[in-house]
Amino acid sequence: MSLTVVGSMAFDALETPFGKTDKIVGGAATYISLAASYFVKPVNVVSVVGGDFDQDHIKLMHEREISTEGVQVKENEKSFFWSGRYFNDMNSRETLVTELNVLGDFDPAIPDSYQGCEFLMLGNLAPAVQRSVIERLHNRPKLIVMDTMNFWMNIALDELKETMALVDVLSINDEEARQLSGEYSLVKAAKKIMAMGPKFLIIKKGEHGALLFSEDKVFFAPALPLEEVFDPTGAGDTFAGGFVGYIASTGDTSFENMKRAVIHGSALASFCVEKFGTERLKDLSQEEVAARVQQFVDLVKFDTVLQ
Amino acid sequence: MSLTVVGSMAFDALETPFGKTDKIVGGAATYISLAASYFVKPVNVVSVVGGDFDQDHIKLMHEREISTEGVQVKENEKSFFWSGRYFNDMNSRETLVTELNVLGDFDPAIPDSYQGCEFLMLGNLAPAVQRSVIERLHNRPKLIVMDTMNFWMNIALDELKETMALVDVLSINDEEARQLSGEYSLVKAAKKIMAMGPKFLIIKKGEHGALLFSEDKVFFAPALPLEEVFDPTGAGDTFAGGFVGYIASTGDTSFENMKRAVIHGSALASFCVEKFGTERLKDLSQEEVAARVQQFVDLVKFDTVLQ
Repeated sequence: MSLTVVGSMAFDALETPFGKTDKIVGGAATYISLAASYFVKPVNVVSVVGGDFDQDHIKLMHEREISTEGVQVKENEKSFFWSGRYFNDMNSRETLVTELNVLGDFDPAIPDSYQGCEFLMLGNLAPAVQRSVIERLHNRPKLIVMDTMNFWMNIALDELKETMALVDVLSINDEEARQLSGEYSLVKAAKKIMAMGPKFLIIKKGEHGALLFSEDKVFFAPALPLEEVFDPTGAGDTFAGGFVGYIASTGDTSFENMKRAVIHGSALASFCVEKFGTERLKDLSQEEVAARVQQFVDLVKFDTVLQ
Repeated sequence: MSLTVVGSMAFDALETPFGKTDKIVGGAATYISLAASYFVKPVNVVSVVGGDFDQDHIKLMHEREISTEGVQVKENEKSFFWSGRYFNDMNSRETLVTELNVLGDFDPAIPDSYQGCEFLMLGNLAPAVQRSVIERLHNRPKLIVMDTMNFWMNIALDELKETMALVDVLSINDEEARQLSGEYSLVKAAKKIMAMGPKFLIIKKGEHGALLFSEDKVFFAPALPLEEVFDPTGAGDTFAGGFVGYIASTGDTSFENMKRAVIHGSALASFCVEKFGTERLKDLSQEEVAARVQQFVDLVKFDTVLQ
């Protein structure tokens, strides 16, 4: 099954309590495509970079059968750059620098070879840009998954709602769900948000796991209790990539299979946070992935012999 | 199997975003014994009240086969009183009034009929008082579960550590685990705390569920996503009561059975928060409890067919 991913490819400079990095490769499409590549091949990426982008990373993507045919290269411009600092609890961060650069006027182009893709993952981007990708695909994919963030709720709410109405699965965090719905209760928030379009809603709660809603059904996936969260950058994108990659590999868009997909996304995200940036996602073995998924199975498993 | 519970029986006056109450019955032993009574009978309570305590509540306890033989009545004094106000998110609260009254010089007495109990639940109290109960039992119970809170970490840490060293299971919340261990990571915190004595540690995370640790094993129980948390007062005590009540009813202190006990405690706690005070815990049917436990089973259940 074919998967197309749209999103940023970027440089990040990060500071955590454990250290700091120079410019390293980041961006939503980077994390999503790497995570998805553990489940489905090829992964087709739509993005834009400047002439300064890291060629070794492009090579790595090709090695993992991630197509960059849809990645525009603007030789005389610079790649999107974000710099941020995490506080001690790793749950909050401040942005130090945002340079949009090539992303400022990103006009996604879909290569012919990507047409007919069955699964589409819209990584965090301006909602109007996300929507243009849907419109430029000749056939509507079987499943469209959209990630977004509070930034767009603040400055482009109408466009966000227009794009949301076109997708099947929306992925946001708990604070964003509260902001978007005006409801503190996540159960109430989920109902309101699904009424805006998406049949499925994923609410990410970071170290507290994730909830999957559809109609009146709800599934909860824990996060793995870790000794150390080294760098949370990209964890949400990695989750989304594992989620949509697993679904694309199975071709099954039922709620039951989405539960498994949430567990696989959570497993990939638990690797992501163990090292800086994409470091831990570059060469996982299938055995490592399977063992991590099993840890999630064991974490919540109990024998249901009741009185 | 016999269960003895020690803790406060009190009056609470509560303010939540949904309304406020006059003095209603509260206290750790109240919630613990009600919750445990759904699983095991009789439940023996050790506590102290003033002459002002609610006789209807005592009657309710007797109807639920909760023994109050160990509840001292100081006719000319007043019961412990706590008043608090919850903020909009229900995760934080402020104390408005604390009147220790009879609890100030509480000297627990164990009736002969309670001697030989196999299970002991130490509800939140001064650690020295908790310890005196252990010392006054002629035979050490098969399992001792202790609940405590940050208040005692601040003013009686040495006594807290002495009591902790005598118990099998400690139940605290995530912030308390961090305070007690000096570790932010709950996995690291659990290791340090278990090294202080308890073989089992429960870390309660409120709306984010609960973790059960023992040696290198970990189990995660979610909280049920609720439309509305009406009043969180007593949820932690209700959890503990359901937990120890389930264990006492089965007589099984294995890690596997403690997982089930955590789920049963979580189920009882999910009822507790639906109404003010103990209202929802007064007359649950076995069918309601079983159906709620099944909701927890369904919430995390997924078919583990992997690729």
